[in-house]
Amino acid sequence: MRRALELAARGPLTGGNPQVGCVLLDAGGAVVAEGWHRGAGTAHAEVDALSRLEDARGLTAVVTLEPCNHTGRTGPCSEALIAAGVARVVYAVSDPGHESAGGAARLREAGVEVIGGVLADEVRAFLHVWLTAVARHRPWVTVKWASTLDGRAAAADGTSQWITGTAARQRVHEQRAASDAILVGIGTVLADDPALTARGDGGELLAHQPIPVVVGERGVPATAAVRAHPAGLIETGSRDLEAILRELDARGIRRVYVEGGPTLASALIAAGLADEYAVYLAPVLLGGDRLAVGDLGIPTIADARRLRITSIEQLGDDLLVTARPIQGS
Amino acid sequence: MRRALELAARGPLTGGNPQVGCVLLDAGGAVVAEGWHRGAGTAHAEVDALSRLEDARGLTAVVTLEPCNHTGRTGPCSEALIAAGVARVVYAVSDPGHESAGGAARLREAGVEVIGGVLADEVRAFLHVWLTAVARHRPWVTVKWASTLDGRAAAADGTSQWITGTAARQRVHEQRAASDAILVGIGTVLADDPALTARGDGGELLAHQPIPVVVGERGVPATAAVRAHPAGLIETGSRDLEAILRELDARGIRRVYVEGGPTLASALIAAGLADEYAVYLAPVLLGGDRLAVGDLGIPTIADARRLRITSIEQLGDDLLVTARPIQGS
Ligand SMILES: NC(=O)c1ccc[n+]([C@@H]2O[C@H](COP(=O)([O-])OP(=O)(O)OC[C@H]3O[C@@H](n4cnc5c(N)ncnc54)[C@H](OP(=O)(O)O)[C@@H]3O)[C@@H](O)[C@H]2O)c1
Ligand SMILES: NC(=O)c1ccc[n+]([C@@H]2O[C@H](COP(=O)([O-])OP(=O)(O)OC[C@H]3O[C@@H](n4cnc5c(N)ncnc54)[C@H](OP(=O)(O)O)[C@@H]3O)[C@@H](O)[C@H]2O)c1
Repeated sequence: MRRALELAARGPLTGGNPQVGCVLLDAGGAVVAEGWHRGAGTAHAEVDALSRLEDARGLTAVVTLEPCNHTGRTGPCSEALIAAGVARVVYAVSDPGHESAGGAARLREAGVEVIGGVLADEVRAFLHVWLTAVARHRPWVTVKWASTLDGRAAAADGTSQWITGTAARQRVHEQRAASDAILVGIGTVLADDPALTARGDGGELLAHQPIPVVVGERGVPATAAVRAHPAGLIETGSRDLEAILRELDARGIRRVYVEGGPTLASALIAAGLADEYAVYLAPVLLGGDRLAVGDLGIPTIADARRLRITSIEQLGDDLLVTARPIQGS
Repeated sequence: MRRALELAARGPLTGGNPQVGCVLLDAGGAVVAEGWHRGAGTAHAEVDALSRLEDARGLTAVVTLEPCNHTGRTGPCSEALIAAGVARVVYAVSDPGHESAGGAARLREAGVEVIGGVLADEVRAFLHVWLTAVARHRPWVTVKWASTLDGRAAAADGTSQWITGTAARQRVHEQRAASDAILVGIGTVLADDPALTARGDGGELLAHQPIPVVVGERGVPATAAVRAHPAGLIETGSRDLEAILRELDARGIRRVYVEGGPTLASALIAAGLADEYAVYLAPVLLGGDRLAVGDLGIPTIADARRLRITSIEQLGDDLLVTARPIQGS
């Protein structure tokens, strides 16, 4: 199973599907084939592994996620395993999908021995973001902001380029590329006209581009840079955050990266929709009233939103603090 | 010299005098006595070392700071070394004191061989805070604040206990105990009635207590807790920060720890009087308008105050970011 998990990690974070790995073992426990899922529209891990063999009869399939029972762009993996004559299926975590679940039952029905729950905690932690998004029917929301040590996002006149240094900005591009969508408020689009593409060191476009989603009632200007985004553009024309996230879920979007501005970020936090925070802190002081986070409707200290820091990284002169909400605070 | 520096570090940071260490060597280079300065009013390092011997004739004294030439509460060290018949004095850094300098010249006059500048960079770094304070005729100013990740110092209703956890609060007490004075605005005294004592884990008073200094025109109420402070109280009745710091310098105060509130902290930063920042960041979000740092009079990003982070420590769930201004920003 540990090998299957290693294989799973080779797959992409984005694209809506989970990262899944599979190994096929013979009766002596030796690995005879390996497979992993390379993203939506390509073979699932089990089918990928089976495709490497002429004859899989009597083998054991070890797979990180319960084989699916759903005909999407590819056929159900449970049927593929049955058709190949696999004798035993060992998996870690049950499939939480509403259409795709039931693979284990289908396999048992066909006389395949099925063992679930192997290394389940480890695989569940690995798939935490995806499992949470699928279970909740809304994407995992990472709220990012860049601020000074005193919590400002811009100077009094609105200038903010550059609060953070190149290493931090490069990490933002990597985080964009690891997301399905970027959420941005119409205020930021109108003020800064950002391109919202994921770019490399040399300014070149990265392989994966998240789709930009503009939140707010006002329209995106015809000349806005974001209209030229290679992944397209979703104009919501709405401030209804829950409805927008439901709509993104329906499009298979699991990871949303929120790039502000302060109004949108604060609204998401106040509504309890932030699953993770990526706070870039620059060793700079600005003072003034251009805050990275606005009002959160918190009257007293007992109602503060308490977070748990999951990592602190130094990026050039800046810090990236990653944190998640503590449940119930 | 390295041994002398080790001895120096045994002395106290507070009390107005520098940390100084001294070793006496015989003709073969063997250590025959050691000494260090234990704080204002006690023997200087050289005299402390000499006091451990019957006969110091012909020895070499290795001392981190140029021997003083000043009769204060204790006699001048230059005279003590001459009287003891020491043959050679090796020191690292020249004495920047206006009354106490001239020791090397006095020793040479008396026929003692004098070598200065040995390991000077290392000793200068060790004494940086004290040397800076003495050279500028004003104390070294550390501005401390505790804020949430979004830069707030209190919730909308003014409640702020507790933003940070016990480990961070304990560190604040240690930093108080390593200071000569605590600066606090009258606003904070009126709002929070703090005791401003340096206390240990169990609430007990620590050995060294910094003197509280209240800044602002309004008077400290007769019933204020700070009136019972074991080190006394300095009521300035003034907002003139430069004059207050000059006055503290004249009292031998070298290290000032500024505990807010936001008005005082911002005024010191805006005036360019902050030498160091101790920023306690709690993984908490509050929103609202109670900021840890107020306005700094910075109109545009090019005028931002840029800092260099000198350390980042995790204290329980909180972070302590220590930083110093980058000159010219
Ligand atoms: N340092 C950073 O990390 C960072 C990041 C991004 C932006 N910024 C700065 O932030 C500034 C823009 O700030 P902003 O707060 O105006 O931008 P914003 O959050 O991008 O946009 C605010 C607008 O979004 C709409 N909106 C969307 N959801 C909403 C909701 N739930 N409640 C209310 N309104 C909602 C509203 O427009 P409608 O009236 O059309 O609905 C609102 O005026 C710019 O100066 C930019 O440079 C800084
Ligand atoms: N989280 C933290 O780290 C922290 C630390 C301390 C306090 N606080 C909170 O801060 C709040 C108090 O804030 P605050 O800003 O009013 O307090 P403050 O800075 O302690 O005091 C402000 C007062 O100091 C005087 N002052 C001194 N120097 C001044 C200058 N250069 N310019 C103008 N005024 C000067 C003024 O009073 P006069 O009119 O009498 O001159 C002014 O009203 C409290 O709620 C407290 O809980 C938070």
